[in-house]
Amino acid sequence: MIVPTPIDTLMLNPLLDTLAEDVMGFLNEIQLNYPQALSLASGRPDENYFNIEEFPDYFGIYVDWLATASGQNPEKVRKSLGQYNRAKGIINDLVVRYLAKDEQIKVAPEDTLITVGTQEAMVITITTLCNRDNDVILIEDPAYVGISHLAIIAGYQVAPVPVGEQGISLPKLEEKILACQAQGKTVKLVYVIPDYQNPTGNAMPIENRRRLLQLADTYGFLILEDNAYGEFAYQANSPLTLKALDVNKRVIYLRSLSKTLYPSLRLGVLVADQQIEHGGKLTALSDLLAKTKGYITVNTPSITQAVFGGILVKNNFSLKKINAPKIAAIKAKRDQLLASLNENLTGENNAWARDISWSTPQGGFFLTVSVPFTVAKEEVIICAENHGMIFTPMSFFYLSKGGGQQIRLAFSNVSKEEIKDAVHRLASYFKTKINLTK
Amino acid sequence: MIVPTPIDTLMLNPLLDTLAEDVMGFLNEIQLNYPQALSLASGRPDENYFNIEEFPDYFGIYVDWLATASGQNPEKVRKSLGQYNRAKGIINDLVVRYLAKDEQIKVAPEDTLITVGTQEAMVITITTLCNRDNDVILIEDPAYVGISHLAIIAGYQVAPVPVGEQGISLPKLEEKILACQAQGKTVKLVYVIPDYQNPTGNAMPIENRRRLLQLADTYGFLILEDNAYGEFAYQANSPLTLKALDVNKRVIYLRSLSKTLYPSLRLGVLVADQQIEHGGKLTALSDLLAKTKGYITVNTPSITQAVFGGILVKNNFSLKKINAPKIAAIKAKRDQLLASLNENLTGENNAWARDISWSTPQGGFFLTVSVPFTVAKEEVIICAENHGMIFTPMSFFYLSKGGGQQIRLAFSNVSKEEIKDAVHRLASYFKTKINLTK
Repeated sequence: MIVPTPIDTLMLNPLLDTLAEDVMGFLNEIQLNYPQALSLASGRPDENYFNIEEFPDYFGIYVDWLATASGQNPEKVRKSLGQYNRAKGIINDLVVRYLAKDEQIKVAPEDTLITVGTQEAMVITITTLCNRDNDVILIEDPAYVGISHLAIIAGYQVAPVPVGEQGISLPKLEEKILACQAQGKTVKLVYVIPDYQNPTGNAMPIENRRRLLQLADTYGFLILEDNAYGEFAYQANSPLTLKALDVNKRVIYLRSLSKTLYPSLRLGVLVADQQIEHGGKLTALSDLLAKTKGYITVNTPSITQAVFGGILVKNNFSLKKINAPKIAAIKAKRDQLLASLNENLTGENNAWARDISWSTPQGGFFLTVSVPFTVAKEEVIICAENHGMIFTPMSFFYLSKGGGQQIRLAFSNVSKEEIKDAVHRLASYFKTKINLTK
Repeated sequence: MIVPTPIDTLMLNPLLDTLAEDVMGFLNEIQLNYPQALSLASGRPDENYFNIEEFPDYFGIYVDWLATASGQNPEKVRKSLGQYNRAKGIINDLVVRYLAKDEQIKVAPEDTLITVGTQEAMVITITTLCNRDNDVILIEDPAYVGISHLAIIAGYQVAPVPVGEQGISLPKLEEKILACQAQGKTVKLVYVIPDYQNPTGNAMPIENRRRLLQLADTYGFLILEDNAYGEFAYQANSPLTLKALDVNKRVIYLRSLSKTLYPSLRLGVLVADQQIEHGGKLTALSDLLAKTKGYITVNTPSITQAVFGGILVKNNFSLKKINAPKIAAIKAKRDQLLASLNENLTGENNAWARDISWSTPQGGFFLTVSVPFTVAKEEVIICAENHGMIFTPMSFFYLSKGGGQQIRLAFSNVSKEEIKDAVHRLASYFKTKINLTK
């Protein structure tokens, strides 16, 4: 019964076909095809603040710090940094001081894992906690597609819960949990981005945060809180993270450093201070997560961890001072974007634009524009081709069908001059489009 | 119907419980509990050859190389290295020159992915190719547990195929494939470590390599070839890798750099030059793998990639010269280990040891000792406690029940003096044990 099988689709995970279209690939392609177009599509951080040339200095600072702390000579420390290291990470003691100082999150080093970005932290968390047969992962809709696409190709069940100006809809969340329970399913994880959400740019108010934590207690789920943009707040007194408010240990916290430092470090912090009854004894969830990490990437590169460790030592465990100029710069860009939208889309001369509106984000990298027509993929090509400007349709971020008349503008990695130009071009696209659909 | 669920085992992936015991955790614990014991348990590479202090220089060499190659100024190149990068990697053009030069593997840059170690490459490959319901992944038994444990917690079906002095048993492989087919299952991937296998230390002869490639054609499976030890050959003319022999593109090749350079770089190379019929058109498998990688770690850190890139540029795309002293050193350790085993376990004075035998590895980090008694976990503690020496029972590496009367000795990260002492201690344990069991 020898049947030679050619290398065809049968050789693939069939779940790949259930993924939504590869929208990130599409946007990359557009940018390659229209190199002259100004893009407000990508939420990449501003390269002018990376200071990547300083990384050997920070590595050296960490080596000296560790040599002093451990009583070893620097040469021995350096050699040890070339070896395999702990799956949980090597700079956890420094990182918890940063979390306490900058984010009022108080956890022990053993409650944390240093991961290869928060994307790996999501893989580790879902793989450790979830059961493909019975569990449903609830995800804010729209949201960053990293979590939903990962869950789908890994064979997990996901379901959307609408997210709006007040963050995830709490009534819809309860409805969905009850619906899942009625079908014999368990909602174990609820994924949220409370701070300056990607893609909406909205932040969850403090009272909703408290209420979400109560719901986690009531219904027995864990919250997977993804924080990549929290410190990019344009005014003081933004609410604490869910993790900082988490008395009953209901929150697993993902702290991305891609925007806070730079993306190519590929560092994230996973905070899990829960204890789990497992095999008859109480086990730290973080220990189980570390075992899973051993089968994903073994451990996070020591060099990049040491660089982050050096940055923390040098800055007395707070990134606030080094991030202040970045935050001021992005606020100035937000202000420019709002001014340009006002200039091009409001007032007597722009009566045609009366049905266009936009959000005023209080932090983060993103702003939402609502338009009186449907913005499909083809519109991105038309705007790039005829008007030299690239945006992202909001529908790209939806698990459900939604966001058809909205676009996301990212203002993080463009100059104020480019924002002015880009909005001018976008307005000319809007005007043409509205005239055509009249 | 509101039922509060406490955080208990129900919150976990039930597949975690199906894993074999955490033997690596056990060995780490033993080493912590018996810090004075000499350990031949760990296959870590020798730290004396890491030269981690040179990494900023290599980074600089790569920046200069890329600046020249791309016509950009070094400052701009450096900034771009802080940004998100391609999921496939940034140094693929350099890596294919290394593969061609050192390993006679000829592929295009687009056929490769730079991964966070080969462990991530396994996650990517299995996630992209396999179907949990119908596919069975065949794995050499015994083998490095990274592949089997990953597959098990991710919900895939795995089955063992015996591996011996000639590599994976080809008759048993055919038997297993036919048995799977009879059950309506597909064998899509066969995982092998042809060169100086972990844990056996054996290499697959050239004729078996050719025959395995024929079987892949006949039965339509892909071979997942894991190469971490291939260049640590103690004599010239060791056989080519399966990938170098792979005319019909049946091999996905994993090239670890953890032993070749140093583990904390966490770099692996995934080579997949297959084309797949997908969605009505021919797609490069590497493109699909890159999409999956986007949902595991987004991309591999640029800093570590740039360091490897700099090493390749500096050494004219060959690691042979910088690895020659490492290979000479490990061969000298193998020789010492063989001499010490002979001295302590053969000859008239050691007649008690007549039923103990061992392999003579021709490369790699490991040697197998066969003993006339069963070596369970408890024996590791007894040997550490009473004789001050730590080894690894071979049974730790088996998916099936096997290896009960064998142990693995790793000689990679110990000095020749330590080997002498450790074998002396091991012999005293053997003698005590054999006298007890008489």
